[in-house]
Amino acid sequence: MKSKKSAPPKVGVWLFGACGGLATTVVVGARAIARGLFPPQGLVTATPAADGIAWQPLEGLVFGGHEVRDSDYVTAAKEIRESTGTLSESLLQALRSDLRAASRNIRPGVMPNAGRTIESLVGSGGRGRRQSLRAQVARIERDLVEFRERHRLDRLICVNVTSTEAPLPLGPAHRTLAAFEKAIARDDLRAVRPSSIYAYATARLGLPFVHFTPSNATLTPAIRELFDRTGAPYMGCDGKTGETLVKSALAPMFKYRNLRVLSWQGYNILGDRDGRVLADEANKKAKVATKDQLLPNLLGYPLHTHVGIDYVPSLDDLKTAWDFVHFQGFLGVKMVLQFIWQGCDAILAAPLVLDLIRFADLAARRGERGPMTWLASFFKQPVDVAEHDLHRQWHALTEYLERARSDS
Amino acid sequence: MKSKKSAPPKVGVWLFGACGGLATTVVVGARAIARGLFPPQGLVTATPAADGIAWQPLEGLVFGGHEVRDSDYVTAAKEIRESTGTLSESLLQALRSDLRAASRNIRPGVMPNAGRTIESLVGSGGRGRRQSLRAQVARIERDLVEFRERHRLDRLICVNVTSTEAPLPLGPAHRTLAAFEKAIARDDLRAVRPSSIYAYATARLGLPFVHFTPSNATLTPAIRELFDRTGAPYMGCDGKTGETLVKSALAPMFKYRNLRVLSWQGYNILGDRDGRVLADEANKKAKVATKDQLLPNLLGYPLHTHVGIDYVPSLDDLKTAWDFVHFQGFLGVKMVLQFIWQGCDAILAAPLVLDLIRFADLAARRGERGPMTWLASFFKQPVDVAEHDLHRQWHALTEYLERARSDS
Amino acid sequence: MKSKKSAPPKVGVWLFGACGGLATTVVVGARAIARGLFPPQGLVTATPAADGIAWQPLEGLVFGGHEVRDSDYVTAAKEIRESTGTLSESLLQALRSDLRAASRNIRPGVMPNAGRTIESLVGSGGRGRRQSLRAQVARIERDLVEFRERHRLDRLICVNVTSTEAPLPLGPAHRTLAAFEKAIARDDLRAVRPSSIYAYATARLGLPFVHFTPSNATLTPAIRELFDRTGAPYMGCDGKTGETLVKSALAPMFKYRNLRVLSWQGYNILGDRDGRVLADEANKKAKVATKDQLLPNLLGYPLHTHVGIDYVPSLDDLKTAWDFVHFQGFLGVKMVLQFIWQGCDAILAAPLVLDLIRFADLAARRGERGPMTWLASFFKQPVDVAEHDLHRQWHALTEYLERARSDS
Amino acid sequence: MKSKKSAPPKVGVWLFGACGGLATTVVVGARAIARGLFPPQGLVTATPAADGIAWQPLEGLVFGGHEVRDSDYVTAAKEIRESTGTLSESLLQALRSDLRAASRNIRPGVMPNAGRTIESLVGSGGRGRRQSLRAQVARIERDLVEFRERHRLDRLICVNVTSTEAPLPLGPAHRTLAAFEKAIARDDLRAVRPSSIYAYATARLGLPFVHFTPSNATLTPAIRELFDRTGAPYMGCDGKTGETLVKSALAPMFKYRNLRVLSWQGYNILGDRDGRVLADEANKKAKVATKDQLLPNLLGYPLHTHVGIDYVPSLDDLKTAWDFVHFQGFLGVKMVLQFIWQGCDAILAAPLVLDLIRFADLAARRGERGPMTWLASFFKQPVDVAEHDLHRQWHALTEYLERARSDS
Repeated sequence: MKSKKSAPPKVGVWLFGACGGLATTVVVGARAIARGLFPPQGLVTATPAADGIAWQPLEGLVFGGHEVRDSDYVTAAKEIRESTGTLSESLLQALRSDLRAASRNIRPGVMPNAGRTIESLVGSGGRGRRQSLRAQVARIERDLVEFRERHRLDRLICVNVTSTEAPLPLGPAHRTLAAFEKAIARDDLRAVRPSSIYAYATARLGLPFVHFTPSNATLTPAIRELFDRTGAPYMGCDGKTGETLVKSALAPMFKYRNLRVLSWQGYNILGDRDGRVLADEANKKAKVATKDQLLPNLLGYPLHTHVGIDYVPSLDDLKTAWDFVHFQGFLGVKMVLQFIWQGCDAILAAPLVLDLIRFADLAARRGERGPMTWLASFFKQPVDVAEHDLHRQWHALTEYLERARSDS
Repeated sequence: MKSKKSAPPKVGVWLFGACGGLATTVVVGARAIARGLFPPQGLVTATPAADGIAWQPLEGLVFGGHEVRDSDYVTAAKEIRESTGTLSESLLQALRSDLRAASRNIRPGVMPNAGRTIESLVGSGGRGRRQSLRAQVARIERDLVEFRERHRLDRLICVNVTSTEAPLPLGPAHRTLAAFEKAIARDDLRAVRPSSIYAYATARLGLPFVHFTPSNATLTPAIRELFDRTGAPYMGCDGKTGETLVKSALAPMFKYRNLRVLSWQGYNILGDRDGRVLADEANKKAKVATKDQLLPNLLGYPLHTHVGIDYVPSLDDLKTAWDFVHFQGFLGVKMVLQFIWQGCDAILAAPLVLDLIRFADLAARRGERGPMTWLASFFKQPVDVAEHDLHRQWHALTEYLERARSDS
Repeated sequence: MKSKKSAPPKVGVWLFGACGGLATTVVVGARAIARGLFPPQGLVTATPAADGIAWQPLEGLVFGGHEVRDSDYVTAAKEIRESTGTLSESLLQALRSDLRAASRNIRPGVMPNAGRTIESLVGSGGRGRRQSLRAQVARIERDLVEFRERHRLDRLICVNVTSTEAPLPLGPAHRTLAAFEKAIARDDLRAVRPSSIYAYATARLGLPFVHFTPSNATLTPAIRELFDRTGAPYMGCDGKTGETLVKSALAPMFKYRNLRVLSWQGYNILGDRDGRVLADEANKKAKVATKDQLLPNLLGYPLHTHVGIDYVPSLDDLKTAWDFVHFQGFLGVKMVLQFIWQGCDAILAAPLVLDLIRFADLAARRGERGPMTWLASFFKQPVDVAEHDLHRQWHALTEYLERARSDS
Repeated sequence: MKSKKSAPPKVGVWLFGACGGLATTVVVGARAIARGLFPPQGLVTATPAADGIAWQPLEGLVFGGHEVRDSDYVTAAKEIRESTGTLSESLLQALRSDLRAASRNIRPGVMPNAGRTIESLVGSGGRGRRQSLRAQVARIERDLVEFRERHRLDRLICVNVTSTEAPLPLGPAHRTLAAFEKAIARDDLRAVRPSSIYAYATARLGLPFVHFTPSNATLTPAIRELFDRTGAPYMGCDGKTGETLVKSALAPMFKYRNLRVLSWQGYNILGDRDGRVLADEANKKAKVATKDQLLPNLLGYPLHTHVGIDYVPSLDDLKTAWDFVHFQGFLGVKMVLQFIWQGCDAILAAPLVLDLIRFADLAARRGERGPMTWLASFFKQPVDVAEHDLHRQWHALTEYLERARSDS
């Protein structure tokens, strides 16, 4: 696969939310694997199922991004080590210069209509809050172009890993590109969230885009219209990493056995910045909505479901979920399946982000445009895909890989 | 149910282990559904996935079987109601005459080389213990033929739902039909378990056969040779109902995400007759062997696994399992998934038995012979099928249904 | 203990909320034990710890009560059997005449300011809604007196087992008896909930009173002033039956080991009428408040706690709770204890109610008045008791029993 | 912390099993707290309940011990950091010279009749295996005396934290000191395990002794006779740290509520050296015996219990236990309580060892001799104490503290 590594292509990765826990873990992990300190555990693109395809080598990735807080990768990684404990002192020591190099590519993000909780996390000042929306878009675009040129990148992939935003009430301004651009022009803050600006700038530049959060202001019809026009592949929304992943793996079993699910209660507790943002009822709503629609879709009938998310500071990023599934079988007998998931969110999500970067890179090389629907298994709310069954989604992925293999 | 029900075909169902908890639940359930007292929840053949096929109506099933204990369906059903509580007083009242009718078709079973624990459950006396093996086979055959004739059955399906037997050391006598028949002729008890006699008699008569337990003395090469010769479809072994079902639904998820499973510990506790039989280390061995091989097969690498089964009398048939899955992801981080399964074994297994009867009946009508490999999803140890992934097994089933539909 | 049973004293038990799941289980259970159909499992007063005291025999209890819905014990018990399955058909058959007899003692309850959710459960009509508060009090008193006289009762104990009410904002009207009586006189609905009327009437008659729910409008300072004046013993609030019981048994362990509890998250799911009432945010607030204050009190420091209650209809009365305890030990290491409680609320609470009736009866005979603080272990929010440690509460109970024994 | 620390008394702590996970955590932890790097979380002697007593300051403890493997504290602590992850790189860096100093006090242990599994862990060679038992005793004594003199210790406490030994069949040689000394004299290996030699040498020197493992060859009647004669306080056996601790906190709850426990199944999985030793059926037997007798004792009636221990290498020292408690309440209804314990064994045990050292030191100063029964709450199998109820044991401890306080 690797062949002779004369010099791998240079592919830029631009992370909106550059110093969050997930983005930091992506950068640390990519460099750790590139330096041979860890095997590529967690990456689908590193398994036999993905053999025979010329995946972009991780050592050829160049990282940069926008960030609204004052931070850098050395600081952010140290915070993770001290709270969650997933990154060891010796690893961070070994990657110190890599992290410093990537930190030099961090630029101030934007905060239009970000909502109270996210604003409170950024602290006094913030950056660039008083610019017009149009100026903010232009600034983001300039940062991207400058990054591409400075590093002489062969390609550039953008990834949204900002904090979950409160849902934006979508209206006429989000239905067509023309209407949206008018709203931008008249500086209508109610038409955007930060992620709208990021996605819009990415679409304008025709760059491949991965939307890894549930924020609904990102891949609106208006912005998708622009992606389609400028011809970039994109996909979202909301990485499927933990409880929802297990759900979408387990729920088909009940269907296969004609066991009627009566109630499916899910309780998530977590404690990091993500948890604090989700503790805000408004932001939580976006997340819960994504998680809640899955079961009726998978099972084919309405059922009693509940998805709770609570902030438990002491857990940091070690998310825990308890799911209680009440189901009815033969002769009306009720039975119970419970599961408890104890995962580290950033550790689960980071390899998906790297996989998605590689898939977006492959799609760009293959000239594919529009939503990359074959990546549905990576998302809680896959764009233009109604199928939530993890196994069918996986099947779709392997079929794509088969096609990609035979094309090459 | 479909069309006009002029009079459904009469299909006999012969249950080896006729008054066990599972067989009793099968009979009670089939009659309850036939009489419209319960919907066919739990039956795959009653779902949209199985539409368009002329399944044998449950009201046309006639039940009988061999049993080594002194019992009948009214008594056995009452025992279930009093211990596990799954069958209500009013249901049993409503089915009283049906259960009495089926009870009239129960005949004494055989006990050659049954092992200490099973023998102790049968109590003093036992039945027909002193007959030669040849005479036992002949008696079983006579019972089957007599049942078919007396009820003027259109077809007859045999199902093995006896208690799990201790594994039989297989030797030359089990490799060929000729060698096995010689062992029978010389009355070599070490060559058989009770289920060998049942399966052999079934094969001699060329009847479709479902082997629902893990006993290894049943579908030996010798007996399969006879099934192939007399041309009956058959399938086994060991119904996949609880913990293993969940395992085979969940394990692929770890593969899809390239998460390395380090350890998978499973602890099963249960309390009915099945539990008592499995508390015998010898009998347990058969069960655990079946359950233990699944994960390395599914995941593609060796891992630390353990399957425990313990007898907890107070649980009766309400089996509980705790599974602890320790896995490793990105950057070597270890995480945990646990599940707790609280199911009623007979209630989970009975609809599978009814499904398997219908599938065997369909296969017989379609002239299919040999192992019904498309039924792999129903078994822990599917005959001639290496695939343990529940989703791929389900895929194979739906492909068969597709073929069966287009043929009809 | 029993001696020669010439004829046990007749003690009346008046249940406010007479046909709820708990009250019905109390009546069914008391009669089942009185008739020797079940042992007195679950009753502390039936254990060696309570030996040597002349407890009122259960066969001498006469049941009656107020109920706002149209129901009776035969109907209510049948509903429990069909939903939760805890009461068997044969048991209800055996108690049919007993349940009919008790049903004749049911009188229409009151509904002043009951709140939307409780009102919706009662259905159209309700009863006695248009009476003045003063008339309602008078009616309740008449019912109690009439019951006592008709059955020639030696004593009469009142128990509040109505649905949890939304918390009533307490004001000057609740601080003194004089103020409260003025509010009643001017028919001020905002000063009462149904349980206020019941408790007030009970206090006026000087009858012993057990307040088994968390409703805060019941044992207000004003009403307690009246109890103290008329000289009846009383106790509350909110029976400690499930998750809170386990909590108060477990939390001291962390103290003994100097393990710092960082977070204690508790999630309760349940599905019966109680669950429906608690699904109303207003009513839930009362319950959660009771449950939430316990841990800081027990552990002696503030900590992150959460108590959730969600309505899951399919569970009926089979309440399930998941508790996640995150704690920190030596060298700052964080560890986890989780428990899952699967209990049947009415089955857990009913024997406590019978115990409390016996204790109230004993207190009345012993001439004790005011709050029966020795009964703290029975309550989530024990009146005038700051101690929540179950083991210390138990110690207080055994000391009382010792005194009672040596007095007799 | 207390007064002005002119120079705390120097108390030696001699650890049999000096470089095991527990002993290493004890040394690291004591030094970390002494240097103010961590608060004394986990130590009962650091809580308000223990105020008013002149506890030996941790900074005055001097550590040494016997070890059969080639190791030292720097190496052993590094192993813990790499496997379980509980000790951070920066902590070990800060304590480097302390650990080196303690390592200089490690002497070769003894291995008479240690059993196959423990011998295999020690690797080729072992140390001092060919000495006579008498010579081994003499060597151990010399090491202890030399340690005391070299460090000019005010007192010396011995603690047994070796691996769990296979149970030794006890016979006449263990009943009296005279018989035991004869067995030693005739070099009868079947009369001893390693811990017998350690305890015997300790007793001969009249030093306080804490027996923290379940090994039954340690505090035999013969050796206790010697402790009584030489006048040293001692206590054991088997630190109560995890599942058993929870059990002994929870079981009384069922008694208080007259809920009948039908079955209590406990499954422990763990993966470090301790786990490997316990995976040997012989060694496991000792552990399970200790854990299994507790419930019938606590509850007062026989019940179905099971305690399993399985070796799961990937867990290292992060022990996990699942307990399933099946109980019966009012009207025969069966309910379930489950708990899952995820603790780090060494982290839980180490503060208990430090507490026990301080209690033993206090007892020595107070001139107490014989078994320190007030320390029952620390042990699974407290010497001469029949009480297993954690709360009553705690009560006994606080009474002792009260006495100690008023004496001083």
